[in-house]
Amino acid sequence: MGVIVVGSVALDSVRTPFGEVTEALGGSATFFSVAASYFTDVAVVAVVGDDFPDEHVELLRGMGIDTSGLYTEAGKTFRWAGTYGFDLNDRDTVSTELNVFEKFRPRIPENLARVEYVFLANIDPELQRLVLDQMKSPALTACDTMNFWIERKREELLRTLSKVDVMVLNDAECRELAGEPNLIKASRRVLRMGPSTVIVKKGEHGALMFKGDSLFSAPAFPCESVYDPTGAGDAFAGGFMGHLAKTGDTTEVNIRRAIIYGTVMASFCVEQFSVSGMASLTGDDIETRFRQLKEVSHFET
Amino acid sequence: MGVIVVGSVALDSVRTPFGEVTEALGGSATFFSVAASYFTDVAVVAVVGDDFPDEHVELLRGMGIDTSGLYTEAGKTFRWAGTYGFDLNDRDTVSTELNVFEKFRPRIPENLARVEYVFLANIDPELQRLVLDQMKSPALTACDTMNFWIERKREELLRTLSKVDVMVLNDAECRELAGEPNLIKASRRVLRMGPSTVIVKKGEHGALMFKGDSLFSAPAFPCESVYDPTGAGDAFAGGFMGHLAKTGDTTEVNIRRAIIYGTVMASFCVEQFSVSGMASLTGDDIETRFRQLKEVSHFET
Repeated sequence: MGVIVVGSVALDSVRTPFGEVTEALGGSATFFSVAASYFTDVAVVAVVGDDFPDEHVELLRGMGIDTSGLYTEAGKTFRWAGTYGFDLNDRDTVSTELNVFEKFRPRIPENLARVEYVFLANIDPELQRLVLDQMKSPALTACDTMNFWIERKREELLRTLSKVDVMVLNDAECRELAGEPNLIKASRRVLRMGPSTVIVKKGEHGALMFKGDSLFSAPAFPCESVYDPTGAGDAFAGGFMGHLAKTGDTTEVNIRRAIIYGTVMASFCVEQFSVSGMASLTGDDIETRFRQLKEVSHFET
Repeated sequence: MGVIVVGSVALDSVRTPFGEVTEALGGSATFFSVAASYFTDVAVVAVVGDDFPDEHVELLRGMGIDTSGLYTEAGKTFRWAGTYGFDLNDRDTVSTELNVFEKFRPRIPENLARVEYVFLANIDPELQRLVLDQMKSPALTACDTMNFWIERKREELLRTLSKVDVMVLNDAECRELAGEPNLIKASRRVLRMGPSTVIVKKGEHGALMFKGDSLFSAPAFPCESVYDPTGAGDAFAGGFMGHLAKTGDTTEVNIRRAIIYGTVMASFCVEQFSVSGMASLTGDDIETRFRQLKEVSHFET
């Protein structure tokens, strides 16, 4: 079992109306792996520069995350800077410095090539396929993407989509990828592009899951204290894949549960900057929110 | 039992990317009463001009709606014209002609003053209170509002809010009324303004209900064919109040059910122009969608 994630490990500088951090631990693979580490063994494949602080690697290792695929290259670590407005829904990217990430060609270490649950975070769809080609016995593969790839590498993205089991994307990306404003129609159209499951993340509005003719609408966790939405989508994916890998059960019933676990991890993520909100949870913290989501969405027939 | 609604009966001219209608039957009280008529006795209190087509009155009466409080005044009926863009989320009001509605002072006919379930659709909060003062034995009162009243008649609106049991409003209105971008915090703040229950309508993202410390997150019905969102909020309120009046049960368990019935009625409303999508339903149509919403939101612990 276990899960492997390929994506970015970055230094994020984020400003929100509630505070700011400078060069904090960030990146899609980071948020994913910290969230997933509460459920199963996690291995991260990414690249950092020789300026990457040891303490960040130690934090990941301290959470039991396998960093044998975290390569250090000469040069600077990927840096991202962004600001969020008062309602936290729109973010402005202030700067993106790819640095060593620009030439990232993911190599899966031999000992990780048989990990069965594979998450391709938001990277170039060509690289996502390069990763898939190296995996020896995937039980379930999932990928994320972003508007940049939808617009600039559509054909490559469609090829990746035809090879993964689960597509995870946000509502704007789903509408854009499908060229369809109705989200239900758009999601079903993405389903026809290859994946057997499509998960649409809607931030404060929860998530939708499409699988065959079935549809699941998951509530968001009612967070009153949202400090920084950065990484929420990756934390969601981490909880989702982590639960699937832990249970080894990819039936729809369990996929629905996994989406709730993803929702729980995203809710912890947004309550603090960087990975702080997810760094020291107990299993009880997670189960409590899982049960709260059941209460929040329950009605009697 | 039974429900009474006070609001507008209007002639709507609506253009969406999927078609258009001119001077079709519209208005908050219309959408509400047609939706509610599937559940219980409904009486509508509103004003129309002497140009109001008989066929519209006949449609309402044909659905069993009591129109003894539908007054006809010399002059023209309230007219609203609007257009929706491709994603149907933003609407532009092209024109609003209040006409006879401008001097509307709602009078509750004697025989309707003892109706127990009272819905104050989106009208001047002063008039909403004028209605409340005329009701003899309300079991449950609910009101809607809009940005116009929040901005121009805030004090009056707060006075109305302190006198109703249920506040129904959309997410943007909730944030504006509370002066708080976090929707959970904003809703709890509205709860402290007086009503024991606050319902936040989020369109394609469903609805939230706050009551005491409890929170209910209702999914939207997954509509693939949305032709015209006009009236969806009032249809939602109609299904909600209709179910409560039918059952005479205002416990939280039943309020949650009522929200699902509201969601079902809104889903039928948006599938056609005017009230056409709600004009000829069967009880089975409604129950089928209720059950589908149960399936859509279900997950196992």
